[in-house]
Amino acid sequence: MTTPSKSERTRVRILDAASRLFAASSFDRVSIRAIAREAGVDSALVHHYFGTKDDLFTEVLSHAATPAELLGKVAARPADDWGAELLRTGLRLLESPAGPALRAMLRSGISSHPALLRTFVEGQLMSRIGGMLSVPEEERRRRAVLVGSQFVGLFVARYVVRIEPLASMAPEEIVTAIGPTIQRYLTGDISGG
Amino acid sequence: MTTPSKSERTRVRILDAASRLFAASSFDRVSIRAIAREAGVDSALVHHYFGTKDDLFTEVLSHAATPAELLGKVAARPADDWGAELLRTGLRLLESPAGPALRAMLRSGISSHPALLRTFVEGQLMSRIGGMLSVPEEERRRRAVLVGSQFVGLFVARYVVRIEPLASMAPEEIVTAIGPTIQRYLTGDISGG
Repeated sequence: MTTPSKSERTRVRILDAASRLFAASSFDRVSIRAIAREAGVDSALVHHYFGTKDDLFTEVLSHAATPAELLGKVAARPADDWGAELLRTGLRLLESPAGPALRAMLRSGISSHPALLRTFVEGQLMSRIGGMLSVPEEERRRRAVLVGSQFVGLFVARYVVRIEPLASMAPEEIVTAIGPTIQRYLTGDISGG
Repeated sequence: MTTPSKSERTRVRILDAASRLFAASSFDRVSIRAIAREAGVDSALVHHYFGTKDDLFTEVLSHAATPAELLGKVAARPADDWGAELLRTGLRLLESPAGPALRAMLRSGISSHPALLRTFVEGQLMSRIGGMLSVPEEERRRRAVLVGSQFVGLFVARYVVRIEPLASMAPEEIVTAIGPTIQRYLTGDISGG
């Protein structure tokens, strides 16, 4: 195990500070200056490591969702389990200690910054989910976006609008009910062929 | 055909005015007084017919979505077509001349007034979708909320966040891809039994 370098620790400190502030307030109300103050560094350093506030937001979202690592674990399972495992992983993440911050950011993306959320979903989530599939690029994108649509709907219905009984169903009940949908979008027939 | 009474015409005029204003601006910025002015009536009359602004909002949403009439047409089809037909009906409505107003209101419900949207979804949409099914109440609600979760996700991904390729897929391609999901939530196995 290597000790993280000083610059790596600074990066993580900035990400943590940004994550706390983005989760506690809306995107528009959080300034780079406030993030720098929270992290105990100079604003210039935040720009140096992360670019604009938009860039930092999508970085924090990726960091919170760590999609690469989590999706790698899902991809290592048999293909027939992907639907259930992807859903289980997503629910676990949203209900983990990091969940409230992630939920607040996704919610703020949907309501006030759809373009930022689109960048994150298309650039990070979809390319990684699509990467699990050995099919042509166009079909990959189509399958990934269908998966995304069911995830977004589950997220909004359960955590934002809180429609019952979905808001209080146990994660495993949701996996049983919705897992086959995700599975079909990933590996089933989606073009009526 | 009967001529609508004067009070019925006033009601419709208020609903139309409210629908225009709610679609053009956010819920918070629209006052009962502004709606009354737009409709050319006294504010007291708006309260008399519709109660609070919250009540008026859910009424306008129901009016725009006319779920009773549309769902009646779907329910009249063979049960195996319900998934595709429900989806087709929803997409047609969202892309009709009334679509932009309906989309703006749903979007504002998701981002700023989830409790109002919950009232509408639970009280109007879910009870009517559930009403198509001859199963116990609890299962009806569960099936209806699963349908709702896929609809909400499609709505947010296609019209709000505009994730490609979903944002530009033709309605019939969406019906082919997502229709079987809705069908399974309505009539298929959702409890792994």
